[in-house]
Amino acid sequence: MKTIAFVLYPGLTPLDLVGPLQVLSALPIADPSFETAVVAASLDPVTSDTPVRLAADRTFDEVPAPYAVVVPGGLTGTMRSLADQRLVDYVRSAAATAEVTASVCTGSLILGAAGLLKDREATTHWSFLETLREFGALPVRRRWVADGAVLTAAGVAAGIDMALHLAARFAGEDVARVLQFAIEYDPEPPFGGLDWSAAPRELFHGLGRSALAEGLADEPALRARLTARL
Amino acid sequence: MKTIAFVLYPGLTPLDLVGPLQVLSALPIADPSFETAVVAASLDPVTSDTPVRLAADRTFDEVPAPYAVVVPGGLTGTMRSLADQRLVDYVRSAAATAEVTASVCTGSLILGAAGLLKDREATTHWSFLETLREFGALPVRRRWVADGAVLTAAGVAAGIDMALHLAARFAGEDVARVLQFAIEYDPEPPFGGLDWSAAPRELFHGLGRSALAEGLADEPALRARLTARL
Repeated sequence: MKTIAFVLYPGLTPLDLVGPLQVLSALPIADPSFETAVVAASLDPVTSDTPVRLAADRTFDEVPAPYAVVVPGGLTGTMRSLADQRLVDYVRSAAATAEVTASVCTGSLILGAAGLLKDREATTHWSFLETLREFGALPVRRRWVADGAVLTAAGVAAGIDMALHLAARFAGEDVARVLQFAIEYDPEPPFGGLDWSAAPRELFHGLGRSALAEGLADEPALRARLTARL
Repeated sequence: MKTIAFVLYPGLTPLDLVGPLQVLSALPIADPSFETAVVAASLDPVTSDTPVRLAADRTFDEVPAPYAVVVPGGLTGTMRSLADQRLVDYVRSAAATAEVTASVCTGSLILGAAGLLKDREATTHWSFLETLREFGALPVRRRWVADGAVLTAAGVAAGIDMALHLAARFAGEDVARVLQFAIEYDPEPPFGGLDWSAAPRELFHGLGRSALAEGLADEPALRARLTARL
């Protein structure tokens, strides 16, 4: 069985996990050799950066060698997770044998903390792009970036695009198109796509600095290095 | 406080809830008179149609009169919920005083079961569009449809588009654009938008019939009426 493991931890941005999970959890209908799992330190519900709490169906120990691993991001919870050795060790160890190690949004910083981004092209939420350099990565502004076995997606909603790309890679483009019909992903953002000339950079860099200050309060050296890039 | 209540029930499609929740949970940063809540019969985790479980932060009783209510959809779990009187009663009662009663995907069928769609234009997941007629609604093929206080969105991912529309209505277009930057919603579906001429109708109508057969096994009359429209 080829397990696609989605990593859950406290304080994450739930759409980073649920977007690609919703796409890839339907993959077994087309190819029963795949399954999806949500893995965490325990099966107890964890908080998110919204009022919903989420609970895994398996522990890290139960899925030591997934076929693919997907690491979601967030703000304060994700910055805190950079110092969570159990989580970072799991990601490093899973990545060692996985066909694909993927991240969504600032989940890429966790890949960085696990040492997986050195000299690799990678992306993340637009507001954190330069922080990737602190992990030895070469930041690239794209919807998703594949470099060897490591696949990083841009912010939050980019995880859905990345998951469709992965579905095509795992099971073919025809299957990916069916999964796209399942979630009726035919986007109509009411005000169009993002107007990057009007990006609220100061606001989001401020949110990033606050998240680093709170999440890495006990890790002043790492906090200072990452904050300097915002 | 204006509470936007997201209704949680077992077996739902989690992206239907988490997509719009991720957008609207950031609304209080711009307008602190808003808050979001996830409401359910209890605070225990419930299953979804993926491996992730979700848990509410408030019970139905704690949020009797939300400013807005958002009802997510799904397959078997949603069909089962049509016969869940406690859930349907909550939606009907909340809708009686809410400014907006919204649904994502087949969540519109729950609005229908609560008697909220009679003679209204409404939409749902593309594969269930005709079933809306069984609730007296006038099905419309659009990304989202507003008719009076009732707002229905198309399948799954359409909830994100609808949430941005709602954010603009609640707090202005400038705020909605900032929330769009927060989730980096600048879609790049790898194979483009949906090609409706190639929609796998038989496959999805079959999935719908199976969901109705399983979810409404104890409600043969309703099951037969809804199945006849697939």
